[in-house]
Amino acid sequence: MSTTKTPRTTAVGAAGAVRSTLDDQAKAQVQERLQPLLVDLLDLSLTAKQLHWNVVGPAFRPLHLQLDEVTDQYRLWADDVAERMTSVGISPDGRVQRVAGDSPADPAPASWTHQTEVVAAMSDRIEAVATATRQRLQGLGDVDVASEDLLIEILDGLEMQLWMFSAQQA
Amino acid sequence: MSTTKTPRTTAVGAAGAVRSTLDDQAKAQVQERLQPLLVDLLDLSLTAKQLHWNVVGPAFRPLHLQLDEVTDQYRLWADDVAERMTSVGISPDGRVQRVAGDSPADPAPASWTHQTEVVAAMSDRIEAVATATRQRLQGLGDVDVASEDLLIEILDGLEMQLWMFSAQQA
Amino acid sequence: MSTTKTPRTTAVGAAGAVRSTLDDQAKAQVQERLQPLLVDLLDLSLTAKQLHWNVVGPAFRPLHLQLDEVTDQYRLWADDVAERMTSVGISPDGRVQRVAGDSPADPAPASWTHQTEVVAAMSDRIEAVATATRQRLQGLGDVDVASEDLLIEILDGLEMQLWMFSAQQA
Amino acid sequence: MSTTKTPRTTAVGAAGAVRSTLDDQAKAQVQERLQPLLVDLLDLSLTAKQLHWNVVGPAFRPLHLQLDEVTDQYRLWADDVAERMTSVGISPDGRVQRVAGDSPADPAPASWTHQTEVVAAMSDRIEAVATATRQRLQGLGDVDVASEDLLIEILDGLEMQLWMFSAQQA
Amino acid sequence: MSTTKTPRTTAVGAAGAVRSTLDDQAKAQVQERLQPLLVDLLDLSLTAKQLHWNVVGPAFRPLHLQLDEVTDQYRLWADDVAERMTSVGISPDGRVQRVAGDSPADPAPASWTHQTEVVAAMSDRIEAVATATRQRLQGLGDVDVASEDLLIEILDGLEMQLWMFSAQQA
Amino acid sequence: MSTTKTPRTTAVGAAGAVRSTLDDQAKAQVQERLQPLLVDLLDLSLTAKQLHWNVVGPAFRPLHLQLDEVTDQYRLWADDVAERMTSVGISPDGRVQRVAGDSPADPAPASWTHQTEVVAAMSDRIEAVATATRQRLQGLGDVDVASEDLLIEILDGLEMQLWMFSAQQA
Amino acid sequence: MSTTKTPRTTAVGAAGAVRSTLDDQAKAQVQERLQPLLVDLLDLSLTAKQLHWNVVGPAFRPLHLQLDEVTDQYRLWADDVAERMTSVGISPDGRVQRVAGDSPADPAPASWTHQTEVVAAMSDRIEAVATATRQRLQGLGDVDVASEDLLIEILDGLEMQLWMFSAQQA
Amino acid sequence: MSTTKTPRTTAVGAAGAVRSTLDDQAKAQVQERLQPLLVDLLDLSLTAKQLHWNVVGPAFRPLHLQLDEVTDQYRLWADDVAERMTSVGISPDGRVQRVAGDSPADPAPASWTHQTEVVAAMSDRIEAVATATRQRLQGLGDVDVASEDLLIEILDGLEMQLWMFSAQQA
Amino acid sequence: MSTTKTPRTTAVGAAGAVRSTLDDQAKAQVQERLQPLLVDLLDLSLTAKQLHWNVVGPAFRPLHLQLDEVTDQYRLWADDVAERMTSVGISPDGRVQRVAGDSPADPAPASWTHQTEVVAAMSDRIEAVATATRQRLQGLGDVDVASEDLLIEILDGLEMQLWMFSAQQA
Amino acid sequence: MSTTKTPRTTAVGAAGAVRSTLDDQAKAQVQERLQPLLVDLLDLSLTAKQLHWNVVGPAFRPLHLQLDEVTDQYRLWADDVAERMTSVGISPDGRVQRVAGDSPADPAPASWTHQTEVVAAMSDRIEAVATATRQRLQGLGDVDVASEDLLIEILDGLEMQLWMFSAQQA
Amino acid sequence: MSTTKTPRTTAVGAAGAVRSTLDDQAKAQVQERLQPLLVDLLDLSLTAKQLHWNVVGPAFRPLHLQLDEVTDQYRLWADDVAERMTSVGISPDGRVQRVAGDSPADPAPASWTHQTEVVAAMSDRIEAVATATRQRLQGLGDVDVASEDLLIEILDGLEMQLWMFSAQQA
Amino acid sequence: MSTTKTPRTTAVGAAGAVRSTLDDQAKAQVQERLQPLLVDLLDLSLTAKQLHWNVVGPAFRPLHLQLDEVTDQYRLWADDVAERMTSVGISPDGRVQRVAGDSPADPAPASWTHQTEVVAAMSDRIEAVATATRQRLQGLGDVDVASEDLLIEILDGLEMQLWMFSAQQA
Repeated sequence: MSTTKTPRTTAVGAAGAVRSTLDDQAKAQVQERLQPLLVDLLDLSLTAKQLHWNVVGPAFRPLHLQLDEVTDQYRLWADDVAERMTSVGISPDGRVQRVAGDSPADPAPASWTHQTEVVAAMSDRIEAVATATRQRLQGLGDVDVASEDLLIEILDGLEMQLWMFSAQQA
Repeated sequence: MSTTKTPRTTAVGAAGAVRSTLDDQAKAQVQERLQPLLVDLLDLSLTAKQLHWNVVGPAFRPLHLQLDEVTDQYRLWADDVAERMTSVGISPDGRVQRVAGDSPADPAPASWTHQTEVVAAMSDRIEAVATATRQRLQGLGDVDVASEDLLIEILDGLEMQLWMFSAQQA
Repeated sequence: MSTTKTPRTTAVGAAGAVRSTLDDQAKAQVQERLQPLLVDLLDLSLTAKQLHWNVVGPAFRPLHLQLDEVTDQYRLWADDVAERMTSVGISPDGRVQRVAGDSPADPAPASWTHQTEVVAAMSDRIEAVATATRQRLQGLGDVDVASEDLLIEILDGLEMQLWMFSAQQA
Repeated sequence: MSTTKTPRTTAVGAAGAVRSTLDDQAKAQVQERLQPLLVDLLDLSLTAKQLHWNVVGPAFRPLHLQLDEVTDQYRLWADDVAERMTSVGISPDGRVQRVAGDSPADPAPASWTHQTEVVAAMSDRIEAVATATRQRLQGLGDVDVASEDLLIEILDGLEMQLWMFSAQQA
Repeated sequence: MSTTKTPRTTAVGAAGAVRSTLDDQAKAQVQERLQPLLVDLLDLSLTAKQLHWNVVGPAFRPLHLQLDEVTDQYRLWADDVAERMTSVGISPDGRVQRVAGDSPADPAPASWTHQTEVVAAMSDRIEAVATATRQRLQGLGDVDVASEDLLIEILDGLEMQLWMFSAQQA
Repeated sequence: MSTTKTPRTTAVGAAGAVRSTLDDQAKAQVQERLQPLLVDLLDLSLTAKQLHWNVVGPAFRPLHLQLDEVTDQYRLWADDVAERMTSVGISPDGRVQRVAGDSPADPAPASWTHQTEVVAAMSDRIEAVATATRQRLQGLGDVDVASEDLLIEILDGLEMQLWMFSAQQA
Repeated sequence: MSTTKTPRTTAVGAAGAVRSTLDDQAKAQVQERLQPLLVDLLDLSLTAKQLHWNVVGPAFRPLHLQLDEVTDQYRLWADDVAERMTSVGISPDGRVQRVAGDSPADPAPASWTHQTEVVAAMSDRIEAVATATRQRLQGLGDVDVASEDLLIEILDGLEMQLWMFSAQQA
Repeated sequence: MSTTKTPRTTAVGAAGAVRSTLDDQAKAQVQERLQPLLVDLLDLSLTAKQLHWNVVGPAFRPLHLQLDEVTDQYRLWADDVAERMTSVGISPDGRVQRVAGDSPADPAPASWTHQTEVVAAMSDRIEAVATATRQRLQGLGDVDVASEDLLIEILDGLEMQLWMFSAQQA
Repeated sequence: MSTTKTPRTTAVGAAGAVRSTLDDQAKAQVQERLQPLLVDLLDLSLTAKQLHWNVVGPAFRPLHLQLDEVTDQYRLWADDVAERMTSVGISPDGRVQRVAGDSPADPAPASWTHQTEVVAAMSDRIEAVATATRQRLQGLGDVDVASEDLLIEILDGLEMQLWMFSAQQA
Repeated sequence: MSTTKTPRTTAVGAAGAVRSTLDDQAKAQVQERLQPLLVDLLDLSLTAKQLHWNVVGPAFRPLHLQLDEVTDQYRLWADDVAERMTSVGISPDGRVQRVAGDSPADPAPASWTHQTEVVAAMSDRIEAVATATRQRLQGLGDVDVASEDLLIEILDGLEMQLWMFSAQQA
Repeated sequence: MSTTKTPRTTAVGAAGAVRSTLDDQAKAQVQERLQPLLVDLLDLSLTAKQLHWNVVGPAFRPLHLQLDEVTDQYRLWADDVAERMTSVGISPDGRVQRVAGDSPADPAPASWTHQTEVVAAMSDRIEAVATATRQRLQGLGDVDVASEDLLIEILDGLEMQLWMFSAQQA
Repeated sequence: MSTTKTPRTTAVGAAGAVRSTLDDQAKAQVQERLQPLLVDLLDLSLTAKQLHWNVVGPAFRPLHLQLDEVTDQYRLWADDVAERMTSVGISPDGRVQRVAGDSPADPAPASWTHQTEVVAAMSDRIEAVATATRQRLQGLGDVDVASEDLLIEILDGLEMQLWMFSAQQA
């Protein structure tokens, strides 16, 4: 077995690596909205997968499928958010330590979870991220319209998910 | 805006929720091999995405694509491992806190990373997980042949990735 | 044959059934723009189908196909509008009595219609709905950016249809 | 904005616009069976969509999907019925005023509807249309075998839907 | 170049080569309806192709496409008719001499044809075959219901084509 | 391993579970035609698979493929017949004991079978089922036209298979 | 109608018809494991279809779909098992009499079955076959590794199904 | 039934209807090579279909499929030849009377044909057309290289068919 | 060869040919933003193709592919911009003389170009167009929200391309 | 915003950059035929798009579609011609200044164009390029047969387009 | 024509070029099993193609197709074997001289071969490679389970092919 | 294990097995051009695969993919060449001994190869085969135009590959 280990990688110089059409102030404003959303979406993707595996109850099958679909959406949105950041010269941080550090402490139980709790947990978590996204949208259009458009699209999708989970609580 | 929050979800009773053809001792042995692999694969999927976004250098494009492909593989394998656990009545734990807690501290830099470092980082990390997978395979077939088969398939895939990254270091 | 008839269905309590990130005032403002657009689109879908069946003249074939395509668009847009309403907790009303009550009296003739009249009727009706959509967009962004985005997309599509029908009148 | 409005469209001469292999008496007999079925199917398509949007309850997801599928079937069947009419020289009437005028007054509630009521409402309405279709089939084969075949296909489909909704009432 | 020529092929014994669930009288009744329809459909396929190549006029493109589509239908229907014959043990005859001998003398002009004439020629020819198919359906169901069903389907398709061509004459 | 066994399942009340547009007498008449056909088709599907595996001889490959295709058809038709029964409120019985009890004793040999015998066995068995299907069609249209249509379609398919197998005996 | 019947088919000589890389003792050991599994899988495919048709209750739709999916898997696995037998020169026996004779007496009720009983019946039956498959795997690898691999794959699939049905009993 | 019949269509003026980059002499030379090839290909397509329906013998299935594939090729080539003619302003003549008049008298028997004769008949007919195509290629490139290229492609295809049929005579 | 030449085409009357929901002032404001963007995109599409053909260097293959992908995007965006203009009644001008006249003089070298220069040239040109697009977006939303939305989407795409090219310069 | 601009790119040494199997004289002869054809095709692609956007009249829809299809063909052919040049070591020049400089001054009007003029303009322009292509083919086969083959294919396609446009002038 | 020739390529240093999780002894044991299998599979792929082209006899068509399918399988398996070698750091050798040197002298005749001989030759050669694969599997699992799994899969496929060819010898 | 071995296959009589439209002299001339090309293409396919597996260096990934694509092309071309030979009655020889005997001794190294050498080796080998193909084209058109056309197509493809590899040497 090969034993040659490469020394720990280090980041390329903090600024200027990738060109941007935004000045530094605008970049900072975009970063403070998109970086936390990136963390939220990666966290949601892991939470939904966790419940996808652990849900039990008579509605196992439709929930199992629904949780897989929303996971796919979170992954696509996270990629879109991160690549919007790179497109204006901001380096995204999606490392697991960062996600764990910036996320709520109890996204989902560690074991089998009954369908009622699954629906409630997803509704609550999605509602929280949707509400935060609305707040992050404030003033974003003055800085970068393309980032604003992306957040609107994600907000729209999150609210559709909120409907589809909360309608099951009726 | 709705303010009714659902109380925190709690897990369904720890044992017996899902039927198993394995006895408790066998389940424990399977769990101690598959749970850490699940964590490794989720961590690898986040690490590869992080580098997919942050890689710079003349080989940006082929590496950007290659990192996306391996991310897809890690996600599929993580799902396979977790669902093999559920198939024998073991609840998988893929929550972000668990993944962060059980993973190495420095999978990837927080910012732009030069292609040489990207290739080295991926080669090292894949080699480590492949080596651990070989060790986890020891004796697994005596307990559960289906779990053994899954780990062999993942080992084969990881080693193919190891070839494809380390060949770029020549 | 079974004769057990179910008593008439009644709506679930008027408010709160589905969670919303909007307060009641905002919901009312969204509803007064999207509900009439939903009616317009359902009406357009029926009108276009009626002409799809009844058009005659040498240009029968291209018009027959074009009317089918726009019908598909109206159906998709109607679904988008209704599901944007549900996504913010508003119940959409797309029942045929509602559509008939809120639509203009003479969208299309009851029988065979010559191609010249078909083109004129579609151009007129689309122009009217596009104009109304521009008006409904006023101030909508202050209340709900995601609804605004949807109406912009529909406006864009309606105006493209207006071009494609009115260009045939040259 | 353009202000040139086209005068109201008028129908092409009532008879003879499109060739027919049926004589006038046969055409009348076909028309009195297919025109009301066309109305029923358009009404069902709007009713099912209304419930697709407004259903609530734990079975939200499977019902939401099922209602979308039957809507697609009603639209395809309505197109088939209307185009069978045109194929024998009869102009179909699918305008919203006609559909509203000829349909039952209360197909579905105007707002959120619980899943139990949704299943009952669909079962009742489908049963009524299936029963009417059986009656419309009487003697139709003596006049036009192709129309008869189409109604048999639709009857078969409606009864399959009746099974699938009423089986949920057990 | 090889010069060995095989002597002229001769048909296998006239009866019994392929099993049938019909007795000889029934086979004869089926044959006298389906064989001429086979000829009609092969002739229509050649006529429509001839016009597909020779049509001229401002509506060249939509007619060129429409004629190709109906050609495809004639070919599929001819195959269905011939294989229905074989399915009840009757040998179909679709040789070009047979088709030429049993078809009308002047299906289409030998050269460039203006679009108005193309539409008229197709409308006339389709109307004639549809009318003959209605006549061939008389009593066929008493002998073989599967053949009857096939002819109904073809009749339905021919009448839809008749609508689509004759609507262009308005 | 879990040892909790569920007590033996028992059927829901014999009548009325699923709504029907047919009265009881009509249901009985439909049942006595479709239930034996369901058994025939399930039996044919198992017979054809058995020969698909056991055929030997120079024509192994084309027969192996042909037997797979007819198996797929038998499965689809069996599903159609069973679901036509459910669509009119009749519970279908496709359990293996029922199929074995109602089928001929010797559909196929237990071991390797030469291609000549395979072709003969399939021709004989298909001819028998096609003949029975013709008899079951008698009077069925007076009771349920949709069931009649389904049997005609199956008859047509069986006779096409009969042609394709018996043509190999020439 | 043809009346020439072919005499009853008889099997080709019992041994040697198809080449094998296994000696006779090995073949016997493979046969005694794979033949009963083939019977189990064919029986499961018929049982799941029976319940697919007869299930009733509010979860009708997701169960109806799930039962269709597992039926497809049983059919594919049965084909794989039979063709592994042929690949080492063993003739598989999948005739309905054999399946009925070797299967448990009461796989499913003869009529409408409530969803709770459906889930329990499937969980029980799958658990039994999975347990038997684990036993059949003992020592199989010493005789034929390819047969072993196939049984591991089927075991893995059966246990995943067991999870998905038993999770609905929570 | 409509009784308005359109007077017999007549061809548009013989020359100049469609533009050409060839002068009249060149057009004549192209026409005398492509028109007979068009006839040959249409005749081959009808002959191959005739045999597709009437072939009997143990190799029924592979021949039945092979004849369908070559039919598709003849149809595509006929379309290519006719449209090469139109592309240089020559009107193609593919009417059935023309095809019957210019084709050999006995392309195929009128009834069931044994596989040996089918293979021989196809080999002979294809060899004849391939040989004629080689002759028609003489000097064609001096007049129109695009027509030459098309004939080479068809020659290549015909000779591949000749191989595939004549190889069965070994 | 035909010698009849058509006299030079002339444009249809300058105003009013196609209906618009915008007044003339608004149309002028839209036109002065979208017409230069149309020119930029057509020019970029030709520049990227030129480099796609002329790039040389070890990274030939990934750059060759990347340049083809961005060309496809420029073509789609140009079509979107031009059709947004037509949708509000403005005639787009994409003639080559216009594009050449309004574009920078030296988009790309006339011959083989080394990969380093290719990456630099694309980065520079994309950065210039992205910057201009940001400026054209100023105030556009006050006139036409749908045009604004289109420019945001194109800006987003251009900036993503800027990232992907400039990341190769690290 | 980044301000670092890269200095103007310059071409790699004029000769020898890419290997060729042709000597310099042959390369020059190929270049003088293919370079002007490349310009013609790029110009045609822009002209057809311009008319695709600006066409008006009752045949708007079929012409709009037809112009899009021919645009796609011009783009593919231009790519083929340029890549044939690169394949024999000749650098193609497709820059917009080159195309504008070498093309006729008035390919299409700057604004809305009536369908009659669109058809005439396309027919004239295609006829001119087809005629030039015939001339460029003279002697090309003596130098490079592969270039000759490509030009024949393009000529064939152009003449087919010429037919399809000029047939609309009848 | 370019005359600059590159000096003969030489291999990169024999060891360590690509990382491996196996030690040198294990690599040697894997290599001595996989390298000869790679040669066998490349040889089989060439042999099957040779017979695909040269087979003659009445069963030409099914054998021609079957030989193409097995060729595809040999190519895929060869790639899998070679890439398993690279995945553990072993360089595979698939050069034609190596394959010719290590293969049996007479895999297939040089010219036309009758179908009986083709079937026999394939059966013999496949049987030989399957037998060798069984031997190479001995002890392989102790060294590398992933290589073992690949060989089992290939063995399974070879034995299925052996069945399908040898069944034609009955 | 079966021990019955079939005696060595022998070729069917050397001449006349498959019909040809060429005389013997022409066949000989075709054979002396196509047989060596067949050998070249089979050798290239093995060489490119060898390098696909053994390439190392930073450009590993794009070269690994490119080598796979050209391998696919060589395989398709080899099949085309061999089947052109069979189409004129010539038996192709693609056995490994023939390929090894007629190919250059050192197409590729036996082990890991650096990317620079890979590009050089492929450029050299492709240039040699392309040059030989140009020579083989001399006079071929006088004997068989279809063979000539195939060689032109292959020459065109080889020269495109030559461009794509040699462009990486700049």
